[in-house]
Amino acid sequence: MPQLRKDPILKQWVIVSPERGKRPGDFQNMNAMPPDDPEKCPFCEGHEKLTPPETMAFRKSGTSPNEPGWWVRIIPDRDPILIPSGNSGRVGIGMFDAMNSIGIHEVLVEVPNHDQTLQSVSPNQVREVVWAFKQRLLEIKKNPRFKHFMIVKNSGRGVSSYSHSHSHIVATPIIPKRIEEELDGAREYFHYHDRCIFCDIVRQEQANPVRVIYQDAFFIAFCPFASRFPFEMMVTPILHQPFFEAIDSDHVTGFAAVLQSLLKRMEKLLTNIPYNFILHTSPISETCRDFFHWHLEIIPKLTQVAGFEWGSGFYINPLPPEDAAKYLRES
Amino acid sequence: MPQLRKDPILKQWVIVSPERGKRPGDFQNMNAMPPDDPEKCPFCEGHEKLTPPETMAFRKSGTSPNEPGWWVRIIPDRDPILIPSGNSGRVGIGMFDAMNSIGIHEVLVEVPNHDQTLQSVSPNQVREVVWAFKQRLLEIKKNPRFKHFMIVKNSGRGVSSYSHSHSHIVATPIIPKRIEEELDGAREYFHYHDRCIFCDIVRQEQANPVRVIYQDAFFIAFCPFASRFPFEMMVTPILHQPFFEAIDSDHVTGFAAVLQSLLKRMEKLLTNIPYNFILHTSPISETCRDFFHWHLEIIPKLTQVAGFEWGSGFYINPLPPEDAAKYLRES
Repeated sequence: MPQLRKDPILKQWVIVSPERGKRPGDFQNMNAMPPDDPEKCPFCEGHEKLTPPETMAFRKSGTSPNEPGWWVRIIPDRDPILIPSGNSGRVGIGMFDAMNSIGIHEVLVEVPNHDQTLQSVSPNQVREVVWAFKQRLLEIKKNPRFKHFMIVKNSGRGVSSYSHSHSHIVATPIIPKRIEEELDGAREYFHYHDRCIFCDIVRQEQANPVRVIYQDAFFIAFCPFASRFPFEMMVTPILHQPFFEAIDSDHVTGFAAVLQSLLKRMEKLLTNIPYNFILHTSPISETCRDFFHWHLEIIPKLTQVAGFEWGSGFYINPLPPEDAAKYLRES
Repeated sequence: MPQLRKDPILKQWVIVSPERGKRPGDFQNMNAMPPDDPEKCPFCEGHEKLTPPETMAFRKSGTSPNEPGWWVRIIPDRDPILIPSGNSGRVGIGMFDAMNSIGIHEVLVEVPNHDQTLQSVSPNQVREVVWAFKQRLLEIKKNPRFKHFMIVKNSGRGVSSYSHSHSHIVATPIIPKRIEEELDGAREYFHYHDRCIFCDIVRQEQANPVRVIYQDAFFIAFCPFASRFPFEMMVTPILHQPFFEAIDSDHVTGFAAVLQSLLKRMEKLLTNIPYNFILHTSPISETCRDFFHWHLEIIPKLTQVAGFEWGSGFYINPLPPEDAAKYLRES
């Protein structure tokens, strides 16, 4: 079973998930992907038997679970980094802290066909994906054991093991370090200013829109002032909204449209670029609702993250976000 | 000029260093390395005129600066991310903070010949490299404008632009986030326990040496309990020592021997593996001397860091550090 271990200095949790029977040299080929064979793809419609039983699906009336007929399908990950059942097993190992890797790790298959992408499908299909994110988060959040929830997409060869368009839904018993840092920063700002820092950033970007890619009445997309990566993007609601999963029906449509538009712009500038997106929603605690504001980060995978960044937390970005925003606006 | 920008939420500084005249597509080829042509290598002995003038070198008596005859040579980086002169230019841009990217960014050429590596050279040459790290840090630390100092090595194709063995010496006007986090964690532990957390980790690893790769009277090398990456290694002095640059002559020899031994073990297990190492020494402030303890991290570049890690700070390591240490001990 995977184990959660805490770095005592950095207070960072790491999932140690042993891949049994591997020899050292095998780790060098970890990025070697299996051939992209749609015949063997477990995510294609018609191959439902190749995955664990689905936990949720949007499917045509009259079709049965784990049969064809769906347009969005959620399944437990086959090699989960977190396991839904069992006790938390919190334990001290000498001065170190560990616990069982309890949590949810599911895959959301975004399209039934192997060659479809979030860029190529109809706006309505993207809307259905966003709606599924919302519905599944609402369901998972009922479990009081989990403290944090996120949606992560790794797209592209070398980034994901599967080329079929999908994302991950992850619920964890601890708040991951990066989120804890966002909470700390946002809380501190709120204590000082009595305002949400995300709301202030939105107003700042609107006042001098050099980094804005797109905005409408409800959403704004921009390249952050201190972007770590070229073409890094953030999308967030203009009005304060801590919980993504509280998004209402109209805004699901609007958010899906912004998301697809950004991915299309990125695709036009950077053909076949691998990318990640990650959705940050407020932890379940009600205490964060005044100062946390949900947002989505999109990061094209262009640059290698070298030792400098890993060792120092000091990122070097060769493209000013103002230039990135201009390219993205115009594409 | 590169600019330092602060993320207002995460309080993370990013260097925005525009590469002029680049088109979006150019960023996709950033990892395409120039061909490895020793004839054009600026770091080879005899090619001194291809670099900016040296700031320090260990060279045979009777030879002149920027001529052959050296065995370790330090030069300013040709495309520095930090510039040594000018004012700090601290400025508020609306709610955001920025400053000029003032600092030192130098390259330490570790060997005169193109094909030598820290694994292949004599133990005495590695000792000279470590001695040069110490001497140059002592010199750079005299400048009161800089708050933090680190030594970073990016080795291997896809990790470094140059294959000739070298490392970077970087001095910054701010303390990078990762170091600030180490300081915070170590300070908090010290306040609670009145002991250095690094000293306690050393004692813990010695008491149950499942993660220990090597130790002698002065140094210990181990795979950290919460290793983020397979075969991640840490080397640190067994006795409390905040400042690497205060290392004395005998210990330079010992540290060089441990460093070379670890790199050789890694090379044996993982042929031609790209890797990084980073040396963390205490910031200049005397207030950290009780709780900060210098250390070197070595990270082979095996796994892709995917969106999950970037977005969450939540690392997934497929190799338990106990297994990694066993492989490294036995190789």
